[in-house]
Amino acid sequence: MEMKILTTISDLQEERKILPEPVGFVPTMGFLHEGHLSLMRAAKKDCASVVASIFVNPTQFGVNEDFDSYPRDPEKDIELLQTEGIDLVWIPTPEMMYPLGYQTWVEVQELTSGLEGQRRPGHFRGVTTVVAKLFNAVQPQKAFFGQKDAQQAIVIQQMVRDLNFNLEVVICSIVREPDGLAMSSRNVYLNPAERQAATVIFRALKSAEKAYMNGEHSSSRIVEMIENIIKTEPLTRIQYVSCADVTTLEEVEGQITSPVLISMAVYFGKTRLIDNMIIGG
Amino acid sequence: MEMKILTTISDLQEERKILPEPVGFVPTMGFLHEGHLSLMRAAKKDCASVVASIFVNPTQFGVNEDFDSYPRDPEKDIELLQTEGIDLVWIPTPEMMYPLGYQTWVEVQELTSGLEGQRRPGHFRGVTTVVAKLFNAVQPQKAFFGQKDAQQAIVIQQMVRDLNFNLEVVICSIVREPDGLAMSSRNVYLNPAERQAATVIFRALKSAEKAYMNGEHSSSRIVEMIENIIKTEPLTRIQYVSCADVTTLEEVEGQITSPVLISMAVYFGKTRLIDNMIIGG
Repeated sequence: MEMKILTTISDLQEERKILPEPVGFVPTMGFLHEGHLSLMRAAKKDCASVVASIFVNPTQFGVNEDFDSYPRDPEKDIELLQTEGIDLVWIPTPEMMYPLGYQTWVEVQELTSGLEGQRRPGHFRGVTTVVAKLFNAVQPQKAFFGQKDAQQAIVIQQMVRDLNFNLEVVICSIVREPDGLAMSSRNVYLNPAERQAATVIFRALKSAEKAYMNGEHSSSRIVEMIENIIKTEPLTRIQYVSCADVTTLEEVEGQITSPVLISMAVYFGKTRLIDNMIIGG
Repeated sequence: MEMKILTTISDLQEERKILPEPVGFVPTMGFLHEGHLSLMRAAKKDCASVVASIFVNPTQFGVNEDFDSYPRDPEKDIELLQTEGIDLVWIPTPEMMYPLGYQTWVEVQELTSGLEGQRRPGHFRGVTTVVAKLFNAVQPQKAFFGQKDAQQAIVIQQMVRDLNFNLEVVICSIVREPDGLAMSSRNVYLNPAERQAATVIFRALKSAEKAYMNGEHSSSRIVEMIENIIKTEPLTRIQYVSCADVTTLEEVEGQITSPVLISMAVYFGKTRLIDNMIIGG
């Protein structure tokens, strides 16, 4: 079957009607890598048809963030999606998604107050708003997100529960390069020295996991260990390292007694990378 | 056909699947009057099946408003809906709609800043949030609202457009008592003297309409005329009288050159009534 490539919402909704159900949906910002493709494969395996979207959503970028420079390669994305056997790709324009007079926002409150939400004000308002719009337009039975954006995954699950979206959210594991770096469209920003340095993130996460297994259950000592390992690389600047309850995302003080999300944002030169691992699960 | 009466979202969604489409939806807060019934009849005429909901939504009431005393009579409501041939009534509980940890809100911005939104902070956030939840749970093809809540109608149409809800919003005319008072569940609060006084609202609106027809196009003089007529009743207190652009809801200064929404909130004793009329259309 030829993959359909659509732009307008009305075209999307017309083609959506005739898709075999359950329909799986994978929203992306394009510049697809193996992480995205693992979501496509999970959707293919699980659903009778699969819709992917490509939309670099302006409202989830802060004014000083990388919206303009965010990498884009729609031709290659379309080729990859075709190879994966995706049924329908929706590529809306910003003017379609946010026409003149646009004024409606979806916000998840407590879960967005820390971690990425704290460092990127307005980011999650943009994410939940665009995902709500995409869900309403595509009306999938299942939607697939990556664990790489751990807080996003939790926030979207909360939104789906709270707003009674009639769909199931599936979270797929992080896909890593052979040297452990988590796949990210932003890895393309790294120069060779930064790319090499960036492997420190996974080494730090693995060391923390090992320390936890060996009986180190102090959240502050786990965080400190990660920070110390990151700092062995001269090209890095740590924005945060967090040990948070995996359900509430509240920082854990003292001992780790239930599953925690170890997460961090680290700059390599001008490039900000995030990664995470759940321990104590 | 027997009308189904459901409480849980899962029961609703199961029964929804087998309803003939298009499905019409009439969300209400219960204590149904002829205004509500006119919405049910419009939905019946237009759709293959009709879902009604009864839910006094706590999040759209301010802390000093009448949530606790809001009139309720589910048995009578069910009888009325049965008589109208409604297929399915959904009566969720507050605990189902807002479980512990609930934290997601839908907000429409500019259109909610004046009129009712200005006098009832948080009101429209509660309305748009619950309506988004109801829409997602019921997934209707058409949803019916009354022109009585004029700003609400405009705000919901904006939300539907902005969030890509795949449904049509139908706005139905105000239904009035023989003496002109707009039907409202809150009319039951009025004592006989207040009930008599409340007829002044429609007289004021009709006088404004007549003055406009006779060439009075000054927005401030139209508003003043309405205020003066309302003030002839000793039992009243005007909260606001507005002459606003019917599309943007911005106050009109100077001459009326395009359709305007004349609207007001007036207290009769402790009871706050709203009403409106579009002129210059």
